[in-house]
Amino acid sequence: MLGKNYDSEVCSAARALEIVGERWTLLIVRNALFAGSTRFRDFQSKLGLATNVLSTRLDTLVDAGLMTKDADEYRLSESGRDLVPTLLALTEWGDRWRAPRGRPIVYRHAECGGEVTLTMQCSHEHQVTNPALVLATPGPAMPEARAAGMLHAVHN
Amino acid sequence: MLGKNYDSEVCSAARALEIVGERWTLLIVRNALFAGSTRFRDFQSKLGLATNVLSTRLDTLVDAGLMTKDADEYRLSESGRDLVPTLLALTEWGDRWRAPRGRPIVYRHAECGGEVTLTMQCSHEHQVTNPALVLATPGPAMPEARAAGMLHAVHN
Repeated sequence: MLGKNYDSEVCSAARALEIVGERWTLLIVRNALFAGSTRFRDFQSKLGLATNVLSTRLDTLVDAGLMTKDADEYRLSESGRDLVPTLLALTEWGDRWRAPRGRPIVYRHAECGGEVTLTMQCSHEHQVTNPALVLATPGPAMPEARAAGMLHAVHN
Repeated sequence: MLGKNYDSEVCSAARALEIVGERWTLLIVRNALFAGSTRFRDFQSKLGLATNVLSTRLDTLVDAGLMTKDADEYRLSESGRDLVPTLLALTEWGDRWRAPRGRPIVYRHAECGGEVTLTMQCSHEHQVTNPALVLATPGPAMPEARAAGMLHAVHN
């Protein structure tokens, strides 16, 4: 078994994946977000996963504060609902690269019915469509020694 | 062991997770995208994961067309680079919910240096900031029987 944690990483994506990077977890969150699932048996019947796995995953989500459990209902917290952009990003990738028969799901804005998509935008108001133009640079919480290594890698 | 595939799912996010939902895979892609890693030993030394796991993950990425292997260099293809928004989404979630000391990484636009972030936008040009206002509705490739079940769930 692989460890759940990426301890040597100084990276928010790694921190996110420590919680939501296990098999099934993002599909559980998806069903809570978009299929109205709240009870153990809802998740179990719609996802068809083993009950022990579902139980462990739900416990992890509750322990990490992404869900609350009240009586037998599981509900997403603000941090759980904040995974919507991650699910949109995965869906858009799958739509482009793994959906030869078309898109199974279209996300819509509840207020106007318009289709919701993700855009990468920069603080100078450019829309960034080419992923090769996105660079990772050290932020305020990156230790100096690692920041130096990163810049080296980016410029090579 | 859990199966790698979510066969009963009609969902592009599930299709994406069949490839990138395994432990380490998105961190391997991250290092290829942003740390300039191309060789097995680059990935291994920076990630510190077991060589057999790294080898399996790289093979999966090559087999699925997200990377190409030429001599001993692994390079992302267009579909691999298209995971940038997924990594941004995970980073932004981790920055908000798991970075008490601040952001380790800031993504920047190579052309102007502006900070790159994700926005959810609808086709009627609304910026959607509240994830609760994003609904999943049946797309053209959703089988009718399932589409009916989805609408029921959304309206409940």
